[in-house]
This record gives sequence, C-alpha cells and structure tokens, in this order.
Amino acid sequence: MQWLDYSTDNCSVQRTMDVIGEKWTMIVLREVFNGVRRFEQMRRHTGISDPVLSARLRTLVDAGILDTVPYREEGRRTRNEYRLTDKGRDLYPILVALLQWGDKYCADPEGPSLLIEHRDCGAPVEAVVQCAHGHGPLRPSESQTRPGPTARKLPEGTKT
Amino acid sequence: MQWLDYSTDNCSVQRTMDVIGEKWTMIVLREVFNGVRRFEQMRRHTGISDPVLSARLRTLVDAGILDTVPYREEGRRTRNEYRLTDKGRDLYPILVALLQWGDKYCADPEGPSLLIEHRDCGAPVEAVVQCAHGHGPLRPSESQTRPGPTARKLPEGTKT
Repeated sequence: MQWLDYSTDNCSVQRTMDVIGEKWTMIVLREVFNGVRRFEQMRRHTGISDPVLSARLRTLVDAGILDTVPYREEGRRTRNEYRLTDKGRDLYPILVALLQWGDKYCADPEGPSLLIEHRDCGAPVEAVVQCAHGHGPLRPSESQTRPGPTARKLPEGTKT
Repeated sequence: MQWLDYSTDNCSVQRTMDVIGEKWTMIVLREVFNGVRRFEQMRRHTGISDPVLSARLRTLVDAGILDTVPYREEGRRTRNEYRLTDKGRDLYPILVALLQWGDKYCADPEGPSLLIEHRDCGAPVEAVVQCAHGHGPLRPSESQTRPGPTARKLPEGTKT
C-alpha cells in the first residue's frame, strides 16, 4: 500500500489523538487506571489546575471513557466519582505502551518509579504488537498495511 | 500499592507524553512508520503547516527518535530525510494501540481506512498487554502495581 496515495482524513490514530491526545488527559487516565477516582484527590496528586482538570474530565465523560457515580461524604454535598467504562478500559494497551517506552528511555538511572506485574504469576506486564494468530512480538518491518474499507484514494493532482 | 501516596514527578507516562504527547508529533510518527520520510511529502499529506512540521521534526530528532539522512535530487540542494532510530521503532506498540482503539471506537461505520497485518501469515496485527511469561491479553484488573526503585513516598502532609 502506498500510504501517500491515500487520504489521512479518516485516520484512526488522528481521531484517537483528537480524543485523548493531550498530556493532561493521559495523566487523568493514569490516575483513574491507578484507582484514583475523586476530583480533589486527582487535583492534589497531579497538580493539575482546577479548570484544566474539570475540562479534561468533561472531555473524557463526554467521550464515554469515564462514567460519573455520585457519592456523598457525611455532612457534605453530593459529588461525582469517575470510573472507567469498557471503552475507557480499552485504552489500557496505550497507557502500558506509553509507560514502558518511558521506563526504557526516560526513567531515572536507578529505574522506574512504578512496576506493573501480572496478578496471578508476578511476571512484569508489557504492551506488545502481535498478530491474531499469536505471532510476535512483531517489529514494524514484520507487518504490512493495506487499504481498509474506508480508504480514500487522493485525486491524482494532490499526490506528492 | 497506594498510588496516591507516591510522587508523580518521575512518572514514565508523563515523561513520554512530554516527548511525544502532542497530536502533530504522533501524526508525524504515523507518516514515518508508513514510509513517508521527506518534509515536503509529509507537509502535503498531513496538511501540517511548515513551522509546526519543522518544530515537531526537530523535537523528534533532538529526542533521538528520528535520524536525518541527507539526500539530493538532480539539480536541487541537499535535503534531509527522516528515519526512525531503534528508540523510534520502540514507539510501535504505542502507535498500534492508538490505531486499534480508534478503529474500534472512532472509525467510519464501514470500517477502518488502514489495515495492518502480519507480513508472514496475513493475520491482523494488534497491540496487547501481556506478562513476560506470555499470559494475556490482560485486562487492567488482572495486573497490579508496586513501587519501583525510584518510587518516592509523598510526605504525610501532602497526602490526599
């Protein structure tokens, strides 16, 4: 497939980045995946400002990635907790892949600050690229692309 | 591990997002992973403006994710092509994970615009979370976290 011959207008990477491709959005997701569900806890733990945190949470709720669940502490007004939906949980490979690249290339010399392991066997958890037949981990050169059902060829004149 | 008790200052997700967590950076990487290496081709194919494209390429070269390789077309001045380094190729799981989430939740109703398959067997390629012992794909609830070598406990007063 000659990628250059096709429109990027309906690229799924681009559409995903439109939803979650902002640093603080990913940080909010990191918090929720780590069990942090309340606005005030997120704010203090991440240092994100109130308006930015509110905006990112709203984006994630609007996108169906987080659900709100009301809770009420004794003597206070009702507030919302934020929980991952199935659509949100499906972001897990993205988050693990971001973590593992950072652990390899950006961690302090002494190692990472957080380890993820398989609950059952204790082995480290990783994000890998494989095929549906179980071959992998695959390097980029071991895969190939072809046009999907909604691939749109660019008109001749616009080709590079 | 109580994530809230630990500092997020040296979080690898955050550090990765500091390097590649900008929409146009990821779009540039998508182009390079798809074999597009020249500035002018990227500019026309993605519609990114000249200054933004220049800035994103510079970020990626400075981070050691892309290398520049000079080329020269007949009668024109020498220019640079951009190629993935090993550090860049290690971003592959992130890109595939972004693509697959987008294919599932943001694609047009008729399906994705780009299919990735294993070159050898033709099966679709996916990003999965698994453990080093090969168990998986793992859901978030099947993994657990613990403090790594550089985990820093927050002082009592700052806890939420």
